[in-house]
Amino acid sequence: MIPAYFMKIAEINLTTEGINLITLEEKEVKKFIGGSGIGAKLLYDYTDHKTDPLSSENVLIFMTGPLTGTKTFSSNRFEVITKSPLTGIYTESDCGGRWGEGLKKCGLDGIVIKGEAKKPVYIIIKDEEIKIKSASHLWGKDTFATDNLIKEEISPNLQVVCIGKAGENLVKFACIINEGKHARAAGRAGVGAVMGSKKLKAIGVLGTKEVKIAHEQEFNQFIKSLTPYMVDQTEALRKYGTSNGVEYCESVGDLPIKNWYQGNWEGAKKISGQYMAQTVLKKNYYCGRCVIGCGRTVEITEGKYKIEESAGPEYETIGMLGSNCLVDNIEIICKANELCNRYGLDTISTGSAISFCMEAYERGLITKEDTGGLKMEWGNGDALLEMIKKIVNRQDLGKLLGEGLVKASKEIGGNSCEFAVHVKGLDFPAHDPRGKVSVALGYATSNRGACHLQAFTHDFEDGAAMPDLGYKETLDRFETNGKAKFVVDFQHLMSMLDSLHCCKFIIFGGMTVEPLVKVLNLVTGWDFSKKDFLEAGERIFNLKRLYNIREGVSRKDDTLPPRILTHPRGGGAGNNLPDLNKMLNEYYQIRGWDEFGIPTKETLKRLELEEHIK
Amino acid sequence: MIPAYFMKIAEINLTTEGINLITLEEKEVKKFIGGSGIGAKLLYDYTDHKTDPLSSENVLIFMTGPLTGTKTFSSNRFEVITKSPLTGIYTESDCGGRWGEGLKKCGLDGIVIKGEAKKPVYIIIKDEEIKIKSASHLWGKDTFATDNLIKEEISPNLQVVCIGKAGENLVKFACIINEGKHARAAGRAGVGAVMGSKKLKAIGVLGTKEVKIAHEQEFNQFIKSLTPYMVDQTEALRKYGTSNGVEYCESVGDLPIKNWYQGNWEGAKKISGQYMAQTVLKKNYYCGRCVIGCGRTVEITEGKYKIEESAGPEYETIGMLGSNCLVDNIEIICKANELCNRYGLDTISTGSAISFCMEAYERGLITKEDTGGLKMEWGNGDALLEMIKKIVNRQDLGKLLGEGLVKASKEIGGNSCEFAVHVKGLDFPAHDPRGKVSVALGYATSNRGACHLQAFTHDFEDGAAMPDLGYKETLDRFETNGKAKFVVDFQHLMSMLDSLHCCKFIIFGGMTVEPLVKVLNLVTGWDFSKKDFLEAGERIFNLKRLYNIREGVSRKDDTLPPRILTHPRGGGAGNNLPDLNKMLNEYYQIRGWDEFGIPTKETLKRLELEEHIK
Repeated sequence: MIPAYFMKIAEINLTTEGINLITLEEKEVKKFIGGSGIGAKLLYDYTDHKTDPLSSENVLIFMTGPLTGTKTFSSNRFEVITKSPLTGIYTESDCGGRWGEGLKKCGLDGIVIKGEAKKPVYIIIKDEEIKIKSASHLWGKDTFATDNLIKEEISPNLQVVCIGKAGENLVKFACIINEGKHARAAGRAGVGAVMGSKKLKAIGVLGTKEVKIAHEQEFNQFIKSLTPYMVDQTEALRKYGTSNGVEYCESVGDLPIKNWYQGNWEGAKKISGQYMAQTVLKKNYYCGRCVIGCGRTVEITEGKYKIEESAGPEYETIGMLGSNCLVDNIEIICKANELCNRYGLDTISTGSAISFCMEAYERGLITKEDTGGLKMEWGNGDALLEMIKKIVNRQDLGKLLGEGLVKASKEIGGNSCEFAVHVKGLDFPAHDPRGKVSVALGYATSNRGACHLQAFTHDFEDGAAMPDLGYKETLDRFETNGKAKFVVDFQHLMSMLDSLHCCKFIIFGGMTVEPLVKVLNLVTGWDFSKKDFLEAGERIFNLKRLYNIREGVSRKDDTLPPRILTHPRGGGAGNNLPDLNKMLNEYYQIRGWDEFGIPTKETLKRLELEEHIK
Repeated sequence: MIPAYFMKIAEINLTTEGINLITLEEKEVKKFIGGSGIGAKLLYDYTDHKTDPLSSENVLIFMTGPLTGTKTFSSNRFEVITKSPLTGIYTESDCGGRWGEGLKKCGLDGIVIKGEAKKPVYIIIKDEEIKIKSASHLWGKDTFATDNLIKEEISPNLQVVCIGKAGENLVKFACIINEGKHARAAGRAGVGAVMGSKKLKAIGVLGTKEVKIAHEQEFNQFIKSLTPYMVDQTEALRKYGTSNGVEYCESVGDLPIKNWYQGNWEGAKKISGQYMAQTVLKKNYYCGRCVIGCGRTVEITEGKYKIEESAGPEYETIGMLGSNCLVDNIEIICKANELCNRYGLDTISTGSAISFCMEAYERGLITKEDTGGLKMEWGNGDALLEMIKKIVNRQDLGKLLGEGLVKASKEIGGNSCEFAVHVKGLDFPAHDPRGKVSVALGYATSNRGACHLQAFTHDFEDGAAMPDLGYKETLDRFETNGKAKFVVDFQHLMSMLDSLHCCKFIIFGGMTVEPLVKVLNLVTGWDFSKKDFLEAGERIFNLKRLYNIREGVSRKDDTLPPRILTHPRGGGAGNNLPDLNKMLNEYYQIRGWDEFGIPTKETLKRLELEEHIK
């Protein structure tokens, strides 16, 4: 007989230094799966609408999922869940690397960090042993150095997540980095600032336990059978990384250019993955359990943008710190990326803050007096690099930019809120809803604000098919009809991937709904149907929505910024402006939400979320 | 030779009791005409973005125009201009009655009230003599009684504007009443609260001077020649008043029903002007210099809604306090109207506040505990009457409702902001943009928030033609194309009517652009072309916009509430939702405003508003 599946969570209180082990029973796990699903459930219970994200009342949750640390492709991920200091609502941030498996091998599925240390600390987990240690020697160090120092101290096999100066200084979009110079980031919405507010510099994990598999032999066989196809189908990602698509994205009006203003840009070809391969690329690298290898290391051996071999920029980074700022020098983008990684800054929000700043500068709303002398002109890469430092060190205008676009545009005033490109306070990632209309609905309804990963439709609307979700052919990217259902379906699947917890790129290698259901059943011993699987995704998505509703979110917040709703950018997006309201009405109907975006009683009952009926 | 035209303004400082006479030279008057045009110019100069609307720093401006007090039809009007405590931006409120001519006959074109009295006062202006008198015996009295008492004290020929308890108690949508029980109101956006904050109960005017006419004989002749047509064309208004159109408005989805939610409603025929004529109507009445006579007196001789003969409800009142609250009892609407007039409450915002409250009550966001025991159910007219008193007396939920929808929806929370139907804080009047799309653009761009009078297109989109503005036929009310220009053209004309200052209904009697230009020239001795005339309207409209831009207004504020943008109400509006962004892009282009709704340098130069170029 297969033993009941359960999860073990360590609750670590930094105020009291108390540690508490919690077991989540199978029934609960079946409802919320793991990763962001269980994370959302825990966050809902630990916090409420009065919780200040940077206070000791907030919790910082690290969660793995049932597949983490198994042989499932790219399953070595974890999710960080907290109340965001950038947006004030639910947030989650997914991270690759190797830390997830490290935690799992300690016998833990997740950690909840409570309270707040008086002085900087870090946590070391070695199997059952959890130690809170002084981090006074680490505080102020960058993430590459911190990773090295802790490994030297404890073991080279240790896996470390840590924050840099951005998190320490409570920059509202500070991130958490795993794997040191092969940086993988839990990037978005300021999870690093929450870690900083708790004075927690790092968490190291080193375990020796086996990850449980219910039907091990069958599982191993199944994964083995899928491997050749997975390797074959993901060749472009391996060869050119995520920035493989820069030129395509420019051509369809997806790549952001000049703070989302401009349609086309010659510079795109100088910042693509193909161009990187000819210039700065050193080699590709893999997260744990990955056969795709989209990571790039880059090296610049001389000149003022010199960097030692380390993680190169992703597509998002290139879009936000490159084209969106009209910076077409790949060396500068690599340097900016390296600075962000070392300081622990989200490259997306950093690029967004700087492109916003450049537009405000062009429009005369800010001057050199505000920027500490920097000429924040379009394409001025040196000023961009300096501004990154100012954001981290909270100097001059960098201090305000580090508070996020909502606050910055409010304080700068004029009409700067008109070109502050965010949803619910979270900056846009580098995909434009005017180029692909499903992205409009995805951003407007994503539970963490403008997010390309909660729906992840941009690669499927005009690109890959997804037959076992009912999408056999590529769709018309400007057509509104049918897109609501498309987004809903993908949000359910993505909720599951964030909970299981796997990399979304494995879909391209054939790991779509049906294989995922099979793998989940083989690992847990469950008997989920495809319907059960997608319904769990729906339940999780709704639970996050309920968290946000408690914070006051409703339809008014499910919107897009003026630049996107009102300015036709031209280029590959032509004159298209997304008809958001039409799609949103359809979306709410499909979801069983009322006209304000609140799940109805019937919906909550259907999803076994009865305790949320009011 | 015709003497140069000029205007005389009395600046009355209630803090110091100092009085100052200002002369506006012809050049300035030619640019801004009078009424709301000169008012906007004065307000721009007297206040700034730091001015608290209810502080002594705000000014309350009463302005007449060049045509006020002349034989021009319905020219006995005046405009109240101030910074609104309801919206925080520019506001104006137009009023009929007889007070405008009274002021003009004192030799004054306007008054600027500055400062703030220590104790309640009222002002009496008799020709040159301006006296500030104690109003301790008037404070707390209703507007009908106040009007009577001052007339008894000074002269039955005195014209009085005054506030009631709502203005005294700083209800954010308190109004100013002229003509006592034949109430005419400067209704909107809380001009009465500003008057209350200055502890100014009333202003009485009694003058003996002649109003100057440059070409008197020709002018008299021209007006005389137009009179028969004017009388003939306005018969329906004379017979049934403004509520003549209730059933038509219901049939085209223009009349608000159930807080703008519902499409059709049987009750409409029980609250129409025709029904009033068969029941409560006593007689019709006229403002000064008017041959239309749309005013109604009503009388209810017995029962619990008994009222003495006094002003009956207008269309707007019937829409907002009647159909929008599902109240189909005309006696209750008359009683509610009488209460609002006596207390000095804007019937539009009062109806809006109560329909909002009824929806919040239905949705369980507020309960009987909040309402002081009132069951705020749809159609509960008795509760509606009690809630009016609570708003005035600032009791229970009435206190919050008296702060306006922005604050009320914020404090009530839940998703109540989703059904708070306003633009820029000003409640919708009783015309629905889903039934006539030009209204969408008119409301979104009106300088005082949701206003049907700054564009006044609802009667021309599906109704009257306006050949000398280029609109020879009625338009398709659901068609978006061409509506931006339509709204711009009408906004220019309406800016002029609010500045001249005449009643807008005279258009229906043939007093369109060309006759108006002629009349203006005959009165002032100017030589305005039609182009000059409309350009002055454009200049005035832009000046108000510049005031609001200084307050932080931009495109983000030129929007409509969720209920209107997202909820198809059905009925005569069908499934139509206005495509606001499309129209707004076109509108900005026509206006010469940038993408954020800011007039470009070229536009400011063209309109001789160079001092506003930044």
